Parts: sequence; structure tokens; C-alpha cells
Amino acid sequence: MKTIYLKAIVKVIGLVLMFEALFMILGVLFSIYYRDNDIPAIVISSLITLITGAVLYFGTRKINYNKLGKREGYIIVSLSWFVLGAFGALPFVISGYIPSYTDAFFETVSGFTTTGSSILNNIESLPHGLLFWRSMTHWLGGLGVIVLVIAVLPFFGFGGMQLYVAEVTGPSKDKLHPRVTTTARRIWGVYILLSIFLAFLYLAGDMNLFEALCHTFGTMATGGFSPKNTSLANYSPYIQWVTTIFMVFAGTNFTLFYFMLKGKGKTVFRNEELKYYLSIFIFATVILTLVLYTGGYYNFHDAARHSAFQAIGIISTTGYASADFMVWPVFTYTLLFFLMFVGGMAGSTGGSIKIIRHVVLIKAVKNVIKRIMHPNAVLPVTYNGNPVSQSAVMNVVSVFILFLITLFIGSALLALAGEGVVESISGTASAVCNIGPGLNSIGPTGNYSGLADFSKWVLSVMMIMGRLELITVLILINPSFWRK
Amino acid sequence: MKTIYLKAIVKVIGLVLMFEALFMILGVLFSIYYRDNDIPAIVISSLITLITGAVLYFGTRKINYNKLGKREGYIIVSLSWFVLGAFGALPFVISGYIPSYTDAFFETVSGFTTTGSSILNNIESLPHGLLFWRSMTHWLGGLGVIVLVIAVLPFFGFGGMQLYVAEVTGPSKDKLHPRVTTTARRIWGVYILLSIFLAFLYLAGDMNLFEALCHTFGTMATGGFSPKNTSLANYSPYIQWVTTIFMVFAGTNFTLFYFMLKGKGKTVFRNEELKYYLSIFIFATVILTLVLYTGGYYNFHDAARHSAFQAIGIISTTGYASADFMVWPVFTYTLLFFLMFVGGMAGSTGGSIKIIRHVVLIKAVKNVIKRIMHPNAVLPVTYNGNPVSQSAVMNVVSVFILFLITLFIGSALLALAGEGVVESISGTASAVCNIGPGLNSIGPTGNYSGLADFSKWVLSVMMIMGRLELITVLILINPSFWRK
Repeated sequence: MKTIYLKAIVKVIGLVLMFEALFMILGVLFSIYYRDNDIPAIVISSLITLITGAVLYFGTRKINYNKLGKREGYIIVSLSWFVLGAFGALPFVISGYIPSYTDAFFETVSGFTTTGSSILNNIESLPHGLLFWRSMTHWLGGLGVIVLVIAVLPFFGFGGMQLYVAEVTGPSKDKLHPRVTTTARRIWGVYILLSIFLAFLYLAGDMNLFEALCHTFGTMATGGFSPKNTSLANYSPYIQWVTTIFMVFAGTNFTLFYFMLKGKGKTVFRNEELKYYLSIFIFATVILTLVLYTGGYYNFHDAARHSAFQAIGIISTTGYASADFMVWPVFTYTLLFFLMFVGGMAGSTGGSIKIIRHVVLIKAVKNVIKRIMHPNAVLPVTYNGNPVSQSAVMNVVSVFILFLITLFIGSALLALAGEGVVESISGTASAVCNIGPGLNSIGPTGNYSGLADFSKWVLSVMMIMGRLELITVLILINPSFWRK
Repeated sequence: MKTIYLKAIVKVIGLVLMFEALFMILGVLFSIYYRDNDIPAIVISSLITLITGAVLYFGTRKINYNKLGKREGYIIVSLSWFVLGAFGALPFVISGYIPSYTDAFFETVSGFTTTGSSILNNIESLPHGLLFWRSMTHWLGGLGVIVLVIAVLPFFGFGGMQLYVAEVTGPSKDKLHPRVTTTARRIWGVYILLSIFLAFLYLAGDMNLFEALCHTFGTMATGGFSPKNTSLANYSPYIQWVTTIFMVFAGTNFTLFYFMLKGKGKTVFRNEELKYYLSIFIFATVILTLVLYTGGYYNFHDAARHSAFQAIGIISTTGYASADFMVWPVFTYTLLFFLMFVGGMAGSTGGSIKIIRHVVLIKAVKNVIKRIMHPNAVLPVTYNGNPVSQSAVMNVVSVFILFLITLFIGSALLALAGEGVVESISGTASAVCNIGPGLNSIGPTGNYSGLADFSKWVLSVMMIMGRLELITVLILINPSFWRK
């Protein structure tokens, strides 16, 4: 194997940093409007990021992007998430609003990976520029910053595909166009369109522009950060229903929206993953509604609203709160805990294991059981009417197993740091599945501030590993990756 | 497909019941010696069981055992576990010591499946005959009652293989002899030899004959019932170390002992599963010892003793207690919780997922990761030096997934019945993996008496499903099984 193309890695990371600096500065507009005191911190942080990026990019001689290989792709993508977190934390630390770098890094990584776990005890005490940046990290991370860079810059060529493959996870990488730049642009186009639409719907409710944008970022990216201490619990039922519908959208494969816009409705409604996704959402909502309504917790409408909101909130891996589900019956939050592992559709901004993998796995298991009774039957696993290869099935199995192994290691490390057993397991599950809240003290009305620093670092790494669906990071720690 | 051979099913179930009646009556010897009041209850229960069995067996016309098919095998084996539990519960109910039939059924199924979860608040208040029967169910269930019937009765012929295959779970069904009767006899021979050896070692310590036999049954079957309220916590370190060593033996593939006796040591020490089994045990013991010793919980020797005991207690799925691990650091019982899913070796009396499946799964995942970087490499999964077929790998995957699905459904049902979240999840895991204790109120010093009746029925079914490694029961509920 060739040596690793180091210059290319440095150059692309430089590009990523310059992009980050550009978006970081935007919050200043709100700080000016609200006369906040965070302007110097944001400007300085943005400059540090911009200059570092420029040095990395312009300090490296010209490279041939077509020569980017698989290995460079995986290294760049994994590295970029750590670098984005490392520099994105600066405004919080420099302004003094999050004095601990550990906390700031956790919060920023939680933002970029669209997890939405927070260490803030009083979110509303932060100035608007910082809160805007906090929510902006969601929106940038939702489809992946690397994909954005490929979409905007025309010069990646074949090398762009290596980056795209490494960042856009999921078993089916629908290519909307043979040119990766075009594919990336179309997906980002859908994302921006839906975001604009949602922001207007929020503005039509009881949200001002600042709240509307922050929540748009949190919803469309399936992130979960809110600039409000009570998340979405104190907004009107209208806002909560709008959010519910758009969480459903955000967990949907974005290429399906593109097909809809192009008038290919049939392709959309035939999609098997979509059927299962909506079925699971409706099934969970009905069950939760029944339990909450018959248990006398809410009237029927409120029970349905909270159930739909929390069900899709967890399934899509957003993690907003419309109510404190820790006061609900044990059954409901046990169900929500297991829903953490469902995930949205492949090709959405949602995290976790994803519907398609569950569908393929269950079909494969069904075949195994059938084959015990009928050993000679030929039973390929099919998906959307096409047979799924054995190696694709094994790939799905691997992601599944890796989630469990990571859950085990993460929980053990948190327990070792002294966290409670429910916090250790639910916190790790929440991080690796990019949800947000866990159970008990890290539940919907709690936060992660009380955890040990060690636990916060572990969870930060888990969030990035989970965002990249584990395989990317595991390829990197495999010795054969580095062997020449 | 042919119609189901109903007569054969009835006849074999009749045989199983007559066997059960025979073993049930044995406890009377201790009741006579200790002048207990449970003799009438045991005699009546044994007679009911014997007569029912005789009516089923002799009331059916002669059958041809060679015509037993796969389907009959699965039905007989699944049914037999329920029937054994249903009749085995009689002595407890009739004597009035466990007045609730739900409780008695739970306790008996927990015995036969070698789970060892108890609903008894004061074990020592029960008379000796009942306690002996309670422990005897472990010993009978350890290798499977059907296997015992095949071993003892010479007339099963080819039909015996169908029963053997359905009851002896695990991916590698080592056949020690082409004739299934001979295989069953050799395995039961090893089991009896080890049991006798262990009983003498117990007698050499601070146990009387009654305690020695009951604990022998509990240890060799990886069951976990003790006739003492404090399990093994109040016995000498000698007894605890002996138990530790024999729990290691009980979790080992019994065919390896047979090879040892035949002087084929090389085959044994080359066995891959054995290496991993011992490595996991030693690794867990070292980690637990370090945490307990450095945390100041025990002196070094006690820390090592409790660590080894609890580690193999959970890994082998025995579930005895040498100490209350709920007062240990969170890390230790979080680790023990995850160890529940390890299980012993295939071909042992241990339950749960089993080492071999973990080894095959992790090798398969490693190959998937390697293949991403080297798409053209041919990388079969190997085990003991032989390639494992894709369909065997998928079989392993299926058992794994089925454990998780069962864990989810069981936990949800328990939570629905109002149990706590930790109890719901750890209780289901403990049942389906046939361990015994869970966490919190159902931990090593607690018991299952406080659960709702509904939860106890759910857990009873989970224990049987887990004992049959899920596939057997799932084959039965698959519609294609019943289609002609």
C-alpha cells in the first residue's frame, strides 16, 4: 500500500476549519441586536479558527484531490470531527460562560454530532451569540461538514467520493448523481429548503427569529439543543406538533424528498424502510398514548401530543423534551430507552443503528429459522424487492455488534468513574446513538454537568464514534489499516 | 409435509412425567431422617405425576420411535419443559409451603432451567424433602431431562437424534458416538462422575450430606439454588473455592472431560472456546479483584475469592452469592450485568449466549472491517482451525439478535406490570440467560417474591425460552412450522 497522503489531509482539515470560522461568526449578529457581552470572545475564536485553517491550507503546497484514497478519506473524516469540536469549543471557554474546556468540548461535540446532551445548568443565562453557535453546530453536523465542503467547492473530483463514502454512513449510499458534488448539493438543497420552511412555521407560532432559527437547527439536524431551559415544554401545542412533524421529516432519507420534488412519488411510497419507520413511530405513539391516557396522566389530546413528540424525539435521535418522562410510568421510559437503538432512516440526519439495519437483520434471522425446518430452501434476504448480498448482511450485523460492544465498554468506563448504573448505561446509549437525554439524573430535566470529567471525555468520543456509525473509527484502530 | 405424529408426542411426554415422579419421591428419605411434615405432599404429588405419565404412556398404542421427525422433536422438547414445571410445582403447592401456584411454577421452572431465581423469603423454613426436590430439578435440567430419557431407555433409535438435536442447543453438537444413546450416556456419565467427586469435596468441608447434595446439584447444573438463606456466603473459604472450581468445570464443554478421561489431552488444550472461556474468567476476576482491593472493600485474599466466585458465578450462569455485590462499587455490578450475556461453553450445563457464539461473531465483525480496506481478500471465519460456513455464522447472529429482542420484549412487559427499570431489564436478562439474581431488589440478597404475578409468568416463559436458546421456541411460533 502507498504511504498516506499527509499533505492532502492537512489541506482538507484547513478547509474545514475555515468553513467553521465563517459560521461561528454569524452569531455576532444576534449578540449585537440583543447587546450581549460575548462579541469579543466569538470574534477572537473565529479568528483563531480562521487563521489556523488558513495556515494549514495555504501553508501546504498544491495537491491533487483525485489522489485522495480510501485511507485518507477515513482519516480526514474522523479527524475533522475532533478538530471541529476542539475549535468550536473556543467561544464558550474564552467568553468564560463555560470555563472548563472539558465541558465546552463536550457541549460542542454534542452539538456537531447532533446528540444534544448538555452540561449547562442554566441555558438561558448564556448570551445569544453563544447559544446561536451552539445550535448552529447541530445544523452543520446534521449532514456532515465534509459533505458541505464537497457541495460548495467544485475541485474535489474523484477524491470527493472517498470523503463522501467515509462520512455518509449507512448501508445504502443513494447516489443522486454520478458526480459526488452534485449529489452533495442536492441533499444540502433539500436540507436548506426544509429548514427555511420550518423556520417560517416556527415564526408563525410563539417564537421570535432567534428561537425559530435555533430550534430549526436543532430539529432539522435531529440534534436537540434548545436555547430554553425547559426545551420545548413551554411552547404551544402548535409548535410541538410542528416540531413532531419535522422530526419525522428529519429522520427520513433526504433523497426521498428529492424524488418527491421531482414528481417520483411512486419510488417514495414503495420504499420499505419508510414504511417500517412510520410504522414504528405510529406503533410507539399509540402504545405510549394508551398508557399515559389510561393511567390518568393527561387528557387524550395531551397524551397523544406528548407521546408522538417523545416517540419521534427518541426514534429520530433528536432528544427534545415536551415533558419530563421520568415522572411517567416505568414502562414508558423503558420503551423510550429501547427506542434509542432504533434510529432514523439511512440518509437522514438521524443517528443510531437505523431502521434499514433492523429490517435486514430481522429478515436474516427469519430466514435462519425457516431454514432449520426447510434446509434446502433458497431464501435470500430482499430489500425493496432486491436481494441483499451476504456481505451486506454481515456489514449490518457488524454495525449492530459494534454498537453493543461500544455500549458495554462505555458503560463500564462510566461506572468505573463512579456514575450510577442507570446513568452509565443510558448515558452511553444516548451518546453512541446521538440522542441527548439519558435516564434518572441525566434525564430530560437533568443534564450532564454532574458527571466526572473522565466520563465527559468518554462520552465525547462515544458521540463521535456513534455519529460515524463506529465502522469508520474502528477501521482506523485496526492495525492492518496502517500497514504499508 | 406430513401431519404431526401426535401419539408419539403424548407417549414421550408420558415417559418424561414418569421419570419426574421417580426423582420427586427421593426427597422423602431426607424428610424421614429430619422428621419433616412434607412427606404426604411429596408422595401425593409424585403419585399424581406418575399416574398421569402412565396414562399418557400406556394409554397410547405402540408407536415407531424411528418415525419421530424434526417437528415432533421440537414440540416434545418445548412442551416437556412446561410439563415438568407444571407437575414439579405440585409438592410446593400441596404442602402449602408455597401456596400460590404462580410462585411454585416460577420456582420449579427456575429450577429445571437451572436459572436459580427464587420467590422464597425464608428458604430455611422449608422442610428438607421440598428443598431436596427444589435442588434436584436443577440437576435434572442441567443436561436436559429428554437427554436423560434417551440415555436410559434403549429403544429410541433414530428418533432419539431428533429429540437430542432439539434439546441439546449450541452451534456445535459434538457427537461422541454415531449412536445418540451412547453419546447421551457418555455425557451423563461425565456429569455423574463430577457430581460424585464434588459431593465428597463438600462433605470434606463444613457441609452435611443434605447440604452437600443440594449444593452439588446447584453447582454442577449451573443452577444456583441453595438450601441456605445466605446462599454460600456463610460457608468456609474452602467450600467457596471448591464451588468456584466446579462452577468453572460446569461451564466447560462436557465432551472435553470425556476426551481427558480417554487420554486425549491435546484435543482439549487446543480447544479455542476453552481458551476464551478461561481468559474471560481470569480477566474479569483480575479486574474485580483490583477494584475491590484498591477500593478497600476486602483484604487481597478475600477480594480475589469473592471476585473469582462472582465472576464465574455469572459467566457460568450459576448465580450463587458469596457476598452482596449490590454494596460493591457500581462498576463491579455493571460488569457483572454485562457478564450475564457471556455464558458458558457450548455442551456445558451453562446457559446464556455462550462463548463460542461471541468468538464467531467477533471474528466475523473483524473480517467485515478488514474487507472494507481490502475488498478482494478472501477471509473465512475459522474456528478450531476449520472454516465456519456463512449459514453457521448467520445462525450465531440469529441467536444473538433473538436474545436482544427477547430482552426488549421481556423488559417492556415487566415494566408494564409496574416493576422498576433496573429490575425489569436485569430480571429479564437474568431469566433469559438462566443466571438467577438480577440487580437492586432482585439482587443477590433479594428475591423475586415482590414481583407481580404477571411478571412471574413472563419470567417463567423467558427462562424456558432461554434454556432452549430461543430458536427452538421460535421455530414453534413460526407459522411455516405448522403448515402442511
